[in-house]
Amino acid sequence: MKILVINCGSSSLKYQLIDMEGEKVLAKGLCERIGIQGSRMKHEVPGQEDYIVETDMPDHSVAVKLVFDALTGEHGVVKSVDEINAIGHRVLHGGNKFTQSIVVNEEVKKVIRECFDLGPLHNPANLMGIEACEKVVPGKQNVAVFDTTFGMTLPEKAYFYAIPKEYYDKYAIRRYGFHGTSHAYVSAETIRFGGLDPEKAKVIVCHLGNGASISASIGGKAVDTSMGLTPLEGLIMGTRSGDIDGAVIQFIANHENKSVDEVLNILNKKSGVLGMTGISSDFRDIEQAAEKGNHMAEVALDAFRYRVAKYIGAYAAAMNGVDAIAFTAGVGENDKVTRRLVVEQYLGYLGAKIDPERNDVRGKETLISADDSKVKLFLIPTNEELAIARDTQRLTK
Amino acid sequence: MKILVINCGSSSLKYQLIDMEGEKVLAKGLCERIGIQGSRMKHEVPGQEDYIVETDMPDHSVAVKLVFDALTGEHGVVKSVDEINAIGHRVLHGGNKFTQSIVVNEEVKKVIRECFDLGPLHNPANLMGIEACEKVVPGKQNVAVFDTTFGMTLPEKAYFYAIPKEYYDKYAIRRYGFHGTSHAYVSAETIRFGGLDPEKAKVIVCHLGNGASISASIGGKAVDTSMGLTPLEGLIMGTRSGDIDGAVIQFIANHENKSVDEVLNILNKKSGVLGMTGISSDFRDIEQAAEKGNHMAEVALDAFRYRVAKYIGAYAAAMNGVDAIAFTAGVGENDKVTRRLVVEQYLGYLGAKIDPERNDVRGKETLISADDSKVKLFLIPTNEELAIARDTQRLTK
Repeated sequence: MKILVINCGSSSLKYQLIDMEGEKVLAKGLCERIGIQGSRMKHEVPGQEDYIVETDMPDHSVAVKLVFDALTGEHGVVKSVDEINAIGHRVLHGGNKFTQSIVVNEEVKKVIRECFDLGPLHNPANLMGIEACEKVVPGKQNVAVFDTTFGMTLPEKAYFYAIPKEYYDKYAIRRYGFHGTSHAYVSAETIRFGGLDPEKAKVIVCHLGNGASISASIGGKAVDTSMGLTPLEGLIMGTRSGDIDGAVIQFIANHENKSVDEVLNILNKKSGVLGMTGISSDFRDIEQAAEKGNHMAEVALDAFRYRVAKYIGAYAAAMNGVDAIAFTAGVGENDKVTRRLVVEQYLGYLGAKIDPERNDVRGKETLISADDSKVKLFLIPTNEELAIARDTQRLTK
Repeated sequence: MKILVINCGSSSLKYQLIDMEGEKVLAKGLCERIGIQGSRMKHEVPGQEDYIVETDMPDHSVAVKLVFDALTGEHGVVKSVDEINAIGHRVLHGGNKFTQSIVVNEEVKKVIRECFDLGPLHNPANLMGIEACEKVVPGKQNVAVFDTTFGMTLPEKAYFYAIPKEYYDKYAIRRYGFHGTSHAYVSAETIRFGGLDPEKAKVIVCHLGNGASISASIGGKAVDTSMGLTPLEGLIMGTRSGDIDGAVIQFIANHENKSVDEVLNILNKKSGVLGMTGISSDFRDIEQAAEKGNHMAEVALDAFRYRVAKYIGAYAAAMNGVDAIAFTAGVGENDKVTRRLVVEQYLGYLGAKIDPERNDVRGKETLISADDSKVKLFLIPTNEELAIARDTQRLTK
């Protein structure tokens, strides 16, 4: 069985074709600048040279058509479209409606559309991707895999904000959480790889990338997660502020004569370690600057790690204990210093001990705690595409 | 030495006259509806009937005059104003300028005025109280005791928000923390009463009242605190939301066609357990409703306790351990169920054990943990007036 995984942005489309026997990536690629001048597709097949197409892509349908042409044509990996069994789509926001992935029908598309409000940047693009596939390869089953379904198991005490209840009733304002596909995949992988109790294991997953979030789950089911109504809340990120006093928004709006939309744009796109340092949203640049003695770069890294540690502590309390902590995503998989400092500076009281030699690793499933650590520590690479493909396979076979 | 403690709101004035020998309250009272029709003073002397004055108080100077008349007159406790050595004033916001309490001079008043922006509801009233005292009893030393000075020892990683640094440079936007006088008093009292190491004790103080905040301190010095730029951030309170995704503000503003000021007013005054339940901002009313089976009342209490537990967990990580947790203020001192549930549901992993019999107590300094608890748990009544009086005595003798 071969599954195509599609992740559409407003002007981009990422894809992977995965052979579910052996869960092997047959081909992957990226269409950029869809609907903008200078659009371009990069198609990669393992062991072959990259195949670049520079051509107009006025909309997502044209991009989807190019993807299928690439997959079946001269640089292809399948003989015909018939070999592709189904298509899995990443969809940002399923609102309160979907507690798991689902085969797309008209009703599902209607709900994705109803959630445009909650995911204004992503949901319209995600729906365009689905409709493009329906047009280009009619009859093929499409599956929507929502970034929010992992958060649907949160208890009320964790998902309700302490605001007038009418806003929940009217607009479904609540904590949803994002990176759900990653948290679900990594927490399950942590249990499997770590040989933990599949029903009772208390796992904290630190998804640390340019976007960053943390989840707490018991037996793979989320009990809390740091992103909220939107991906703004929680950890300090590349460009997002994470947690903030709501009154800061009012203060900046009033003193800088900005609209609330303008302030939120700053909090989403010009804050985080970029805003603190003025240097970059890339943690590697911040680390370089800190090494050279840039004070705000040091503070930003300190604050980033400190916030990660505080969330780990908070979630240990939320679950009344923690069996394992897993680090994943760009920073989590590649930055051994961050992993070490979070554990050594802050988590000794939990009996957590990192093994510096085991921790000297990148992007590979590894136990990184010492043998006498009371909390198991892992590096678990995330793989959202594979998680989407697995859900798609499960729902369409 | 006798110290008068004054806490001015925009239309109110609370006072206590404290004899520092034995730290005994000689008299206390409240002026209400200053500048509003129907103003009224209640003056209490222990062992005597309350003395009520119903008279016009067009401004704070008139109120201060009435207070001094009451203290020295027929219902008085001192023969003349000369017996009152100094006056301690609660001032909300000292900005980044004051790291401790200070004798008021023109420069101090200027800074209090500069901080109107940061404490728009309180600082103007606090300054009115000081100026009223200068006018009514000229020559008497006034001391400003700031609610924010406790937070001045926070490290940069804890006080910087992850927003563009220019907002810190221009407006001093940072985490300040409030209830500082209470946190300082209770953390010191916890160390004294608990016989803890005065230099190294890691103490978490849960100030749980209609306003609620938590602090982490080492040897009595704050390392983190849950309120931020304003008292909005952190725990769920009577009417304040506490932590929230900043995007919720944008969402409500745009969908309800409200200004950012209107939304912030809702988050400050119509949220918290009041907003969640629609019942009341008083936790006792919420508890009653929950006992009768009101679902949102149950959720609100659950969410309130859960957030307290998460902050305790976060601060245990922040300090890499915790020696003692103290509960204080209205809910903290009187609600044994909340104390028990926070510890039993969430803090077992720290080795914290509550002793239900010891915990069956209200408003009295008490060790409430079991003998084999790895974290000492205390009920420590707060006393902000005494803390203000002590600072005032120290600075004026």
